[in-house]
Amino acid sequence: MDMPSDPYLPYDGGGRNCIPLQEMQKRGANYTMTNGGGINSTTHLLDLLDEPIPGVGTYDDFHTIDWVREKCKDRERHRKITSKKKDSVWEFIKSLYDAWSGWLVVTLTGLASGALAGLIDIAADWMTDLKEGICLNAMWFNHEQCCWGSNEPTFEARNECPQWKTWAELIIGQANGPGSYIMNYIMYIFWALGFGFLAVSLVKVFAPYACGSGIPEIKTILSGFIIRGYLGKWTLLIKTITLVLAVASGLSLGKEGPLVHVACCCGNIFSYLFPKYNKNEAKKREVLSAASAAGVSVAFGAPIGGVLFSLEEVSYYFPLKTLWRSFFAALVAAFILRSINPFGNSRLVLFYVEYHTPWYLFELIPFILLGVFGGLWGAFFIRANIAWCRRRKTTKFGKFPVLEVITVTVITAVVAFPNQYTRKNTSELIKELFTDCGPLESSPLCDYQTDANVSKLLDDIPDRPAGQGVYDAIGKLALALIFKIIMTIFTFGIKVPSGLFIPSMAIGAIAGRIVGIAVEQLAYYHHDWFIFSQWCNVGADCVTPGLYAMVGAAACLGGVTRMTVSLVVIVFELTGGLEYIVPLMAAVMTSKWVGDAFGREGIYESHIRLNGYPFLDAKEEFTHTTLAADVMRPRRNETPLSVMTQDDMTVEDLEVMINETTYNGFPVIVSRESQRLVGFALRRDITIALENARRKQEGIVSSSRVHFTQHAPTLPADSPRPLKLRSILDMSPFTVTDHTPMEIVVDIFRKLGLRQCLVTHNGNVLGIITKKNILEHLEQLKHHVEPLASPWHYNEKGHPPSHGSNGRPRSRVNHVQLNTIEEDPEESEEEVQLLKSTVI
Amino acid sequence: MDMPSDPYLPYDGGGRNCIPLQEMQKRGANYTMTNGGGINSTTHLLDLLDEPIPGVGTYDDFHTIDWVREKCKDRERHRKITSKKKDSVWEFIKSLYDAWSGWLVVTLTGLASGALAGLIDIAADWMTDLKEGICLNAMWFNHEQCCWGSNEPTFEARNECPQWKTWAELIIGQANGPGSYIMNYIMYIFWALGFGFLAVSLVKVFAPYACGSGIPEIKTILSGFIIRGYLGKWTLLIKTITLVLAVASGLSLGKEGPLVHVACCCGNIFSYLFPKYNKNEAKKREVLSAASAAGVSVAFGAPIGGVLFSLEEVSYYFPLKTLWRSFFAALVAAFILRSINPFGNSRLVLFYVEYHTPWYLFELIPFILLGVFGGLWGAFFIRANIAWCRRRKTTKFGKFPVLEVITVTVITAVVAFPNQYTRKNTSELIKELFTDCGPLESSPLCDYQTDANVSKLLDDIPDRPAGQGVYDAIGKLALALIFKIIMTIFTFGIKVPSGLFIPSMAIGAIAGRIVGIAVEQLAYYHHDWFIFSQWCNVGADCVTPGLYAMVGAAACLGGVTRMTVSLVVIVFELTGGLEYIVPLMAAVMTSKWVGDAFGREGIYESHIRLNGYPFLDAKEEFTHTTLAADVMRPRRNETPLSVMTQDDMTVEDLEVMINETTYNGFPVIVSRESQRLVGFALRRDITIALENARRKQEGIVSSSRVHFTQHAPTLPADSPRPLKLRSILDMSPFTVTDHTPMEIVVDIFRKLGLRQCLVTHNGNVLGIITKKNILEHLEQLKHHVEPLASPWHYNEKGHPPSHGSNGRPRSRVNHVQLNTIEEDPEESEEEVQLLKSTVI
Repeated sequence: MDMPSDPYLPYDGGGRNCIPLQEMQKRGANYTMTNGGGINSTTHLLDLLDEPIPGVGTYDDFHTIDWVREKCKDRERHRKITSKKKDSVWEFIKSLYDAWSGWLVVTLTGLASGALAGLIDIAADWMTDLKEGICLNAMWFNHEQCCWGSNEPTFEARNECPQWKTWAELIIGQANGPGSYIMNYIMYIFWALGFGFLAVSLVKVFAPYACGSGIPEIKTILSGFIIRGYLGKWTLLIKTITLVLAVASGLSLGKEGPLVHVACCCGNIFSYLFPKYNKNEAKKREVLSAASAAGVSVAFGAPIGGVLFSLEEVSYYFPLKTLWRSFFAALVAAFILRSINPFGNSRLVLFYVEYHTPWYLFELIPFILLGVFGGLWGAFFIRANIAWCRRRKTTKFGKFPVLEVITVTVITAVVAFPNQYTRKNTSELIKELFTDCGPLESSPLCDYQTDANVSKLLDDIPDRPAGQGVYDAIGKLALALIFKIIMTIFTFGIKVPSGLFIPSMAIGAIAGRIVGIAVEQLAYYHHDWFIFSQWCNVGADCVTPGLYAMVGAAACLGGVTRMTVSLVVIVFELTGGLEYIVPLMAAVMTSKWVGDAFGREGIYESHIRLNGYPFLDAKEEFTHTTLAADVMRPRRNETPLSVMTQDDMTVEDLEVMINETTYNGFPVIVSRESQRLVGFALRRDITIALENARRKQEGIVSSSRVHFTQHAPTLPADSPRPLKLRSILDMSPFTVTDHTPMEIVVDIFRKLGLRQCLVTHNGNVLGIITKKNILEHLEQLKHHVEPLASPWHYNEKGHPPSHGSNGRPRSRVNHVQLNTIEEDPEESEEEVQLLKSTVI
Repeated sequence: MDMPSDPYLPYDGGGRNCIPLQEMQKRGANYTMTNGGGINSTTHLLDLLDEPIPGVGTYDDFHTIDWVREKCKDRERHRKITSKKKDSVWEFIKSLYDAWSGWLVVTLTGLASGALAGLIDIAADWMTDLKEGICLNAMWFNHEQCCWGSNEPTFEARNECPQWKTWAELIIGQANGPGSYIMNYIMYIFWALGFGFLAVSLVKVFAPYACGSGIPEIKTILSGFIIRGYLGKWTLLIKTITLVLAVASGLSLGKEGPLVHVACCCGNIFSYLFPKYNKNEAKKREVLSAASAAGVSVAFGAPIGGVLFSLEEVSYYFPLKTLWRSFFAALVAAFILRSINPFGNSRLVLFYVEYHTPWYLFELIPFILLGVFGGLWGAFFIRANIAWCRRRKTTKFGKFPVLEVITVTVITAVVAFPNQYTRKNTSELIKELFTDCGPLESSPLCDYQTDANVSKLLDDIPDRPAGQGVYDAIGKLALALIFKIIMTIFTFGIKVPSGLFIPSMAIGAIAGRIVGIAVEQLAYYHHDWFIFSQWCNVGADCVTPGLYAMVGAAACLGGVTRMTVSLVVIVFELTGGLEYIVPLMAAVMTSKWVGDAFGREGIYESHIRLNGYPFLDAKEEFTHTTLAADVMRPRRNETPLSVMTQDDMTVEDLEVMINETTYNGFPVIVSRESQRLVGFALRRDITIALENARRKQEGIVSSSRVHFTQHAPTLPADSPRPLKLRSILDMSPFTVTDHTPMEIVVDIFRKLGLRQCLVTHNGNVLGIITKKNILEHLEQLKHHVEPLASPWHYNEKGHPPSHGSNGRPRSRVNHVQLNTIEEDPEESEEEVQLLKSTVI
């Protein structure tokens, strides 16, 4: 340890500074001990820091994690376990437990996600049917299960089995007639209102974080932000319950996004069982990536699609190990869901379909048109929904979330009931639209004029002219389309769990089915046209309207979320046919390109920006010519950078500097004259160390000299004992030169997950670039995109800082009575307030 | 440009040094012009460098690319096109062409890969059958096509249609008997030998790079290495032809790996059409990633699996855009192959299967045992094959590749012919092993004692006792297994195109089928055992031996390559059933864990290490505690780092330094006294600039002062004109401090794709770490792994450098008559020799 600190001697044994927690504990005594050159230094070997310092190595709420530090911590932990492995059987078992904990935690997460998804499916089905009636001999059966025993030949007759009673039958004893209709109408609204009110109340009282889809926040968390409680047990419990209620209330929302949130909560909760994941924010995020794959896997019954969703849409840091574990978690979850068998068809999803006819090259034209529609819908939806959400945030209207939910629920229920396509569960609607008209289909959508000569049992039914039922159905579907479009805009963002996969898919499926029927009839009546005559003979089954519905659904979902590969794979897993990938791909890519023409952000990125989360999007390309010098702080005309010198400041100087500034960290330089960079010290660590020294170390007074060097500087004989702070110094801070193009700097921040980076010129420190500076800079450059919210500018307005006035427990730094405004990177109090207001 | 160069003034307009090519061309005059402070400086505005400097911005063969520089170049190009877009219609069209060139190039690559794969399939099928006989009425038909017209009821009878003549029938007129057998045997060996000889001769004469599977080299190329001609048109042509020959010769090899190489050649060749990809090595690698996805897609008919293969196994840098394009290329290739329909069954692969019975939980035990077998096989194969390949490299034996191929071919043919399972095409063998015994199956593997009462037309055939045919088949399969295991070890690495997917899968499929039949018979005879009685009733179809074959194939392939997710997805796409993912996953993960226990490297990584390619594996975790100071050069007792000072060296000093050292680049510091870092200058750029100045600039003599600063230093009146070299200085070199843990340094190198990184202490330059140093360091730490080859140590043995003695055109640096040994990072002459000797 006491080697000469010649700058040209690279072998400095001390300060493996990347590993603060474990190393600090190990070295204990060295931490605040003074030794070396000081004349009056005594050789107390104080074991002040044998117990772990609470708070070191953890993060405050709404802070960004340091990926590099977390990864170092994990490797150090791994090394420790490996080195101890051979000491005893117990240590060996511990090392095995540690090695397998990654697989264990994803297995548990998969199991829990699958089970919860099954539970939610069953409960939501039952409660949705409760709005219409009840199964008299077994209250806990939904409509379908209630009538399973029925022996009626057709689906429709089976649906009207005697055991199932509508509310009108029960209350006024009438099964038909206007009285019964009105009674059912009223009961429908009553139950919808009840479910909606219960849902929003539970969210408001117990877990404000349970609202919304959760995907924007999960993206932000995975990129390295801390939001305490967002993935906690209360959120899990309330989100599960209210999700069922919200779906059952008949609102225009889906359960797919929230299922991802539920799965991530499971992943987070199980990671508490494993020190490897519990104590390391970076490792925890690997579990969360796997959990989000499991969530999509159970939402759509698409394990591979889930993994790709996690990779393409959600995750930030996705090493290969996470790929394997995500896949495993997704599989486990899918198989648990399958053994629960919530839909009674041993399929993972409600809308599994099989088509029997191929598609023809010409059909790409309507498919691409559906893609255009999807892109336009996506762009329109994002703008409208963000405008509405901004209004909710900025006006008084947002103060009454319960009233808003009630209003939306009542309007939805009142408008939805008269139309059979909006009254039913949205998933069932999608299923009906996807399904091709088989011989036994009795839906009005399949009311074709059947030629009596054609056998009813053939799978391959030729194209037929549409009957009146089909035209009626198209009319109702068009109304349902308009209704869904309007209601979804107002629904996404209200304070209940709400996903938008299902509503988006429903809109696309309706549009697609209408287009499909139109093409089918066109081909039937004009089979002599050139484009049809190539492949569509009379009596052949040319056009599959169900396929159009599926393509439309994918296009609309793609327009809203801007997913591509994962979306195609999810829909491919629904159908199981490689054959239909090309139409899907054509529609989804068109939809993405059309959508991107109106604004490059998907709905999740827009919500992230609306809420002002510090999210550095890995997809965006940085195409400007600025240099690091243009972005760094301080600016040219600002006060110079606050720096510490390595050996000529006193304890008081440090305290003053910490009181007077608000930065989260300070570069340490050689001396005022030679501004060469020595290292970087975090505000949090300095305050803890100073407090500790003042309280526990003898002889440390305000005038004590602080040194970050290996040896104390030579001091006059009467000067007080110096304080050595080398162990809190990060001696490997990231640096770039002032000439580095910003595109490289942004790349480094993204790929390495930095919090800050120092800017040097010829070895001298010039300034600092934080993640906040980069986000601000990107926001400034994005002139064409309307600014949504930029909480980072709040500080510049100069309003007084709030000192923990919100009653939250403050971090340890308060104990030294320092002024802790902490507003450097992106975690100002204002932002916390802002964030809180977003989530009620 | 002429702003004061105060180090604290960040706005230095000059030197956006990340963009050397375009910027240099733009600035032309400034490049070697002298201006500013020199007393006798004249103001010639020489336009010496208006034409592009040949060689700047490109790389020599066997050099590593600088990803950061390439990405900067691309963004600069993009900015230029965007800014010009509105100037004219032509520029607008050019910008559109540029924007769409990414999609165009992957579409073309997909088209070409699909077409070539179809061609190879058809040709290989025909030539494989040519070894046995010929179709008399249509020479270009293979056996199956020849007999399509035949109306025989069973498969076997159909195979013996009159149009198809065996060689014995043609030559000696006998269809049966020992004479015919011997004649057929001789002709089989003759054709095999002919094909083998032709293949190796073509490879040796026309394209040495066409041998092997190509995947190790492609991995290395994708990680940023340059191997000129490896993906060129000659390689493509010869690889395509010789692949057909090699497959047809009956050697124990497959076409899957080489198909990836073929697809990458297509990608590389098409990228020449698009300046965006042609001129940028980093962008070109995006196309190659997509191409390798297309290659696997056509090899297995698995587009999603191909994308995941590219992501998991091959690619190094895989942004989301590449994901989309890879998916697109894979789809296009698959659909082209499908429309060519080489197998006549409108399937993409020969071994598409469908199973009708589910699997039972108990069966996981045999599946996991198959996984263990796969892992053991993988570990054994890798060790044995690498040992053999090392022997080939190091002994005289490697000097006779043609002889080796002929020997292996003859042995293979002689041993293979008598056994029907080794005689046939390996793909067909796999297909037979995968296929479950249907009612119409006539293979000996399906010779069960059928109960006469059971209808022949049921899909669901109950388990039956095995007949004599099955036992005979098992015996032959066991022999085939031993044969395949031995021959594959000696075959992989010979000088013909050779993949090992198919042989590995065949080994696993044989083992799996044997295990499957054993379990089936066990369950039949002991259905009262506890484990069977749970689910296997008499007369039920419990066990599917074909599924065991598939699981075994996946396990063995996994053991050899250590792929997991992509492998499971590929096999999933073969069967189309989500149901069988769990058995596959169980076997593949077991296989990986068992294999990893014997050595963490897959076959491709082992071959990369054997060949000494500079490949920094992204999968390996670095778990040691060394610091940057321990790895950097110069070492403690070595001569100090060669540095240049910013303004007090002369032209002669520079030339001497370049002559006396062999480094690829030099740090530029402030002065000898203050070793603060200013920038980094590449050897190549310095030599070009000096040569240029000596030839074209007036007044530049040996004693001219060279300055890297904005302004020339103040010189005595009689001193010669100074030479300004600021524009070749990289003013944003990457730096780390000496205390940075090596795990972080390795992470930075991997993620940012660096070539070198400077090490500083308190702002002073201490040393340099190159990719070579890191690889050396990793090699040293890997004590448990036997060192295969470490070409980087060759230089240390002090044998004389070879000066272009191999006759290759030398790089431009020769023109200034400097000694250009160029052995810094990893591109020594010795290594080139080594590499050449690897590939003949």
